[in-house]
Amino acid sequence: MISLDDLKSLARPAKTKVVLVVMDGIGGLPRAFDGKTELEAAQTPHLDALAAQGTLGLADPIAPGITPGSGPGHLGLFGYDPLQFRIGRGVLEAVGIDLQLTDQDLAARGNFCSVDAQGLITDRRAGRIPTEVCARLCGLLEKIQIPGVDLIVRPVREHRFVVLFRAVGLEEGLSETDPQEIDKPPLPVRAEVTHASRAAEVANRFVAEAKKLLAAEHPANMVILRGFSQYPKLPKLTEIYGVRAGVVAVYPMYRGLARLVGMEAVKAGDTVADEFTALEKHFGEFDFFFAHIKKTDSYGEDGNFESKVHVIEEVDRELPRLLALKPDVVMVTGDHSTPATHKAHSWHPVPVLLWSKWCRPDGAKGFSERECRFGGLGHVRSAELMPLIMGYAERLTKFGA
Amino acid sequence: MISLDDLKSLARPAKTKVVLVVMDGIGGLPRAFDGKTELEAAQTPHLDALAAQGTLGLADPIAPGITPGSGPGHLGLFGYDPLQFRIGRGVLEAVGIDLQLTDQDLAARGNFCSVDAQGLITDRRAGRIPTEVCARLCGLLEKIQIPGVDLIVRPVREHRFVVLFRAVGLEEGLSETDPQEIDKPPLPVRAEVTHASRAAEVANRFVAEAKKLLAAEHPANMVILRGFSQYPKLPKLTEIYGVRAGVVAVYPMYRGLARLVGMEAVKAGDTVADEFTALEKHFGEFDFFFAHIKKTDSYGEDGNFESKVHVIEEVDRELPRLLALKPDVVMVTGDHSTPATHKAHSWHPVPVLLWSKWCRPDGAKGFSERECRFGGLGHVRSAELMPLIMGYAERLTKFGA
Repeated sequence: MISLDDLKSLARPAKTKVVLVVMDGIGGLPRAFDGKTELEAAQTPHLDALAAQGTLGLADPIAPGITPGSGPGHLGLFGYDPLQFRIGRGVLEAVGIDLQLTDQDLAARGNFCSVDAQGLITDRRAGRIPTEVCARLCGLLEKIQIPGVDLIVRPVREHRFVVLFRAVGLEEGLSETDPQEIDKPPLPVRAEVTHASRAAEVANRFVAEAKKLLAAEHPANMVILRGFSQYPKLPKLTEIYGVRAGVVAVYPMYRGLARLVGMEAVKAGDTVADEFTALEKHFGEFDFFFAHIKKTDSYGEDGNFESKVHVIEEVDRELPRLLALKPDVVMVTGDHSTPATHKAHSWHPVPVLLWSKWCRPDGAKGFSERECRFGGLGHVRSAELMPLIMGYAERLTKFGA
Repeated sequence: MISLDDLKSLARPAKTKVVLVVMDGIGGLPRAFDGKTELEAAQTPHLDALAAQGTLGLADPIAPGITPGSGPGHLGLFGYDPLQFRIGRGVLEAVGIDLQLTDQDLAARGNFCSVDAQGLITDRRAGRIPTEVCARLCGLLEKIQIPGVDLIVRPVREHRFVVLFRAVGLEEGLSETDPQEIDKPPLPVRAEVTHASRAAEVANRFVAEAKKLLAAEHPANMVILRGFSQYPKLPKLTEIYGVRAGVVAVYPMYRGLARLVGMEAVKAGDTVADEFTALEKHFGEFDFFFAHIKKTDSYGEDGNFESKVHVIEEVDRELPRLLALKPDVVMVTGDHSTPATHKAHSWHPVPVLLWSKWCRPDGAKGFSERECRFGGLGHVRSAELMPLIMGYAERLTKFGA
């Protein structure tokens, strides 16, 4: 795969505009009664017309046979090889609640838990306390004073929270405090690499103070911390390709992932139509626009084939509004497959539709997994899609003379 | 390509069962009179039905344009990038005669040769002595005493034998004693890396003792040694994927290769039907079962198109017995191509058929090189097939969150 450094050296300014439409978990599998996948069952006249003019392909998000999580799935789409660039669990959790991380942040996932008089864990989830209680306790913990460190402690849901340790010199490489079973005490944080010793000290200090502050609480009288991770050291899209990049996404996780690579989030309502309205409104501000549609994945995970089909049809209905903006390149794809028959993310390759005036049309009859097998893009890795987009957008100059 | 360490971290337990059927050298080329390849000429109703339900692809065993030997061809199928993991010739020769190596073994290929009174080689193959003579002389050599070293010396065929030096601390990195021409003396073994000096000492001592023991023999009065190599440091399939893996193969070489990656060999007779009987008998003992069919390759090398076709048809006839065992994933493929028109291993990509309930069917009309071009697996490296198998077997968890 071509390196980001090489891509950066090839990038050139252009006035072209790109829209990347990601239907989360778009790839499907045939349903029993007529053998159609979700994309095939959906009535998608606009996507089909685009497919007929464009070039199709299939993409493996990580590698053949590997099922991606949302983080690596999107990193791949943004052009970062997920096997090379890894995002820690703490960072992902922080991003998922719309926290804006800085490069001085060390993030961790937290659980409120219950411990007995001996300090042994009796419930790793503190009886799944209500989110409002979690929020109040986070407020308490945020008052902990650690010299030189800013603390951000925010509720996620029920017993789950995120803590950001913000300070210079906090490096990742820490063991977790979760013993993974009850009747054990929370473990001390250990630095697994020497340069993480300051971070270990800070984390242990936080846990000790939390213990004191929570002593009188019930059932959430202690914390366990996992997934310590730093803000990932990723070159931003602007640095690599020189594009101003924007994102519209209903769910915070995807705005957060996009921010990690330098995209700016724009506001939108909750529906697919709202997202296309936001796209219309902000189209002039960006060279590269990423629109994330969540519900294809959610319905896929629910095993709700029909509703996944309806979301695809909804996107199709809005597509003319996008095309009316006269983008130079449009890509429609997904971060992974979530076949409704499988009810989970899967390893199947993802259909890709690339449209620009520079396409060799495949003459496809529609946009589907089947048609994509024969597409001119071939079978690629998701991380190769961004160079393709930039190539079709005439934003990459010749490699060598 | 995803690393074995990453795969290991993704592996999860499952009850699914996998059968990998390898028809050695299966890939073919069109014959002159009707343009059909061996797979196309064969009547294979069962394989064709499986292809219609499954997902097809083409695999390059090593890299495009590269013709594989049997060792790397199989390593690739077992999921080890043959460009990264290499098996020495000595080990391969030992494996080929069913020797069970340990991680303390240094293996070498030997030739009995003829030398004159000055010690100059007059015949590098000692007139191709009969195998029985070779066996007797190996018995002699096995009596050589080297302190701290166990010696195993076994005949291969005619003048060829294998020697295993079994001891702690014998590292590979040795020069060969074969001068590759007559009228030269056998060369001393040199350590090409410093930590191989003990091994060089041992090998030279063996050669010196062999010279004495063989002095009165004719024509085989000396030995030359080549291909010194250690038992390869490969993580076993069990370590990576947590599967119990079994192999049925008529030829020892393939049982041996499978043992190198942790498979357990089961006994079978000599025919394809015998192999399927062994598969039936031992199916319950393993999660992963590798069945090796040799004669597709042998007839390919002979240029015997018709007989290669018959072997394919024989496998097809037995296929229902395999399917009756209700495996979760079946893959049918080869370790390389051996087109009968080419009479040798070739560099052509190998047809792959993957079948499971999680397939997006390609709707192929049959199993052939032509149909595989349009398959949903695309064009992959053979080493990527194992992650695909494990993905379809639901034995890999999500990569990242």
